[in-house]
Amino acid sequence: MKALVYHGPGKKAWEDVPDPRIIDATDVIVRIDTTTICGTDLHILKGDVPAVTDGRILGHEGVGTITEIGSAVNQLAVGDRVIISCVSACGSCSYCQQRLPSHCLSPEGAEGVGWIFGHLIDGTQAEYTRVPFAENSLHKLPEGVSDEAGIMLSDILPTGFEIGVRNGRVKPGDVVAVIGAGPVGLSTIMTAGLYGASRVIAIDLDDNRLEQAKRFGATDVVNNGAADWKEQVMAMTDGLGVDTSMEAVGIPATFTAAVDIIRPGGTVANLGVHGTSVDLPLQDLWIKDIAITTGLVSATTTPMLLKLVAQGKLSPEQFVTHRFKLDDFMDAYDTFGRAAETKAMKLAISR
Amino acid sequence: MKALVYHGPGKKAWEDVPDPRIIDATDVIVRIDTTTICGTDLHILKGDVPAVTDGRILGHEGVGTITEIGSAVNQLAVGDRVIISCVSACGSCSYCQQRLPSHCLSPEGAEGVGWIFGHLIDGTQAEYTRVPFAENSLHKLPEGVSDEAGIMLSDILPTGFEIGVRNGRVKPGDVVAVIGAGPVGLSTIMTAGLYGASRVIAIDLDDNRLEQAKRFGATDVVNNGAADWKEQVMAMTDGLGVDTSMEAVGIPATFTAAVDIIRPGGTVANLGVHGTSVDLPLQDLWIKDIAITTGLVSATTTPMLLKLVAQGKLSPEQFVTHRFKLDDFMDAYDTFGRAAETKAMKLAISR
Repeated sequence: MKALVYHGPGKKAWEDVPDPRIIDATDVIVRIDTTTICGTDLHILKGDVPAVTDGRILGHEGVGTITEIGSAVNQLAVGDRVIISCVSACGSCSYCQQRLPSHCLSPEGAEGVGWIFGHLIDGTQAEYTRVPFAENSLHKLPEGVSDEAGIMLSDILPTGFEIGVRNGRVKPGDVVAVIGAGPVGLSTIMTAGLYGASRVIAIDLDDNRLEQAKRFGATDVVNNGAADWKEQVMAMTDGLGVDTSMEAVGIPATFTAAVDIIRPGGTVANLGVHGTSVDLPLQDLWIKDIAITTGLVSATTTPMLLKLVAQGKLSPEQFVTHRFKLDDFMDAYDTFGRAAETKAMKLAISR
Repeated sequence: MKALVYHGPGKKAWEDVPDPRIIDATDVIVRIDTTTICGTDLHILKGDVPAVTDGRILGHEGVGTITEIGSAVNQLAVGDRVIISCVSACGSCSYCQQRLPSHCLSPEGAEGVGWIFGHLIDGTQAEYTRVPFAENSLHKLPEGVSDEAGIMLSDILPTGFEIGVRNGRVKPGDVVAVIGAGPVGLSTIMTAGLYGASRVIAIDLDDNRLEQAKRFGATDVVNNGAADWKEQVMAMTDGLGVDTSMEAVGIPATFTAAVDIIRPGGTVANLGVHGTSVDLPLQDLWIKDIAITTGLVSATTTPMLLKLVAQGKLSPEQFVTHRFKLDDFMDAYDTFGRAAETKAMKLAISR
């Protein structure tokens, strides 16, 4: 088959590789119908994730059709259309049993991390992929849910909801600020209403992204390039700050911004993938009754989100800005890598 | 009357001041039977809390007897023995109504902070004190609870429980580490069992304090002066770290230590009063599913803790290491200020 293979920092190719095969009885083989590229894949290609080694097939998002099942698989069948979750859950370790498979301790994830596709095992940017612990890591796609909606449930929608909205303890009536209106920030904006946020403020430096944010559910937008951006946010609360601020960029400046606008008793939910440490002003925060949360998606809310998608209450297919065929994977990476210019948000790369 | 008056950094005196009087209809006057000194008072005396101005009577902890009540006070009477809570709750602002009076917005606390005694209004290190919002801020002492037990409910026991144990989300079976075995750290150790911690590890540089910690309920002790102290802690878990770590010192090194030993999915509860910022290693933490919490006590759990004290299930009187008369207040400060040498933990300073 063909697959997108990592060959060390800066090097990748869409090339011939052996077909995947069943290794464990709980595996299945999925034919990829639609996959996509994540910002994390770009980090890997820069060499930021040394656990990814030469020869690894990238990708942790996918929708496909089962072509083969292991002998222990009972609840899935050849021909099932499925969403591949970015987190693989063995189901039996202590983290899986406490519903935190993002830290699954299975031998497949030798680093104590449930994100193994395109990281510690071969991923989904391929014609076929092997899915371990398949019954815990695949979700059957209901009739009527498109590939382009389903693929957003592999990673970004549950990430936004679990790490932003749920960790951020959003409650009815809350004022929520989301810093960074990229795909993950927009996922928090799309799902903040599920817990009844009264106001969702999108904050970004890019006015084009802020316009997009309104389509995803932002009630207000603030360009944080403006000198008075904090005053603008404070004017949307009672002057004390927002109930929840979410950091969806991954750099110190945006983390500091998220902390600066939090009210006493509020929660700062970090979603960004950070490469350096940040300065935490504990001399101001110790008294403020705040919580700062972090996390990797566990995807335990995927079934719930999928139900809402099937009911038409969430429409994540609107993330798709560009469409490619699998054989044009190199072009897709080029378009995604120049997102500021191409306005690419999420791609749908299909067979 | 006599009171302990702050006269700017480094200056204080036990001197004659006017008797307090009822100002608002919701006030009462309390004759102080027992008061004490908090580490925060030493910070104020160093000049670290500029909101405290020359002429302010210090102190935010006290047990006493009501001598006069305002015209709107119905549920308290002259002669009642009461605990004075360190946090004054107006009861009607948005923070009080959401049970977070640590950020009470009443005009008495013009800084949006419920800790006003010995800070923004005159405090409890005096023969008498005025208590605003008395019905929300005093707790009647049941028969049989001593002044020395009651005074620990003004601040340190609810602080340890609310900011350490409750914010730290301690659950049955959890392994909890407490860094800093001073009065507040010991309060968390004393109350960690209320949520069923299976193991409570006290961590301190002082072996004497670690011995004390065992009397307060620590199941294990680790001197973090040892080169292998982290390995000692990890050996008490499954090698992944503790479920909750509590920082009860207030310096960057101990905060970093608390972060270093937290397991994926765990909570770092900060109790220390910090004077500087700290370095937060988000490049390691973003993926770890942790929460970092901060807070000032709201004292909403004081009635519950008082019930347990009255039932003999908690014995906070064991914090008292030294006893003084009010007229010896200057000696009391001297003893408390040299705590490393005098081994003072909490003082009982009584009429």
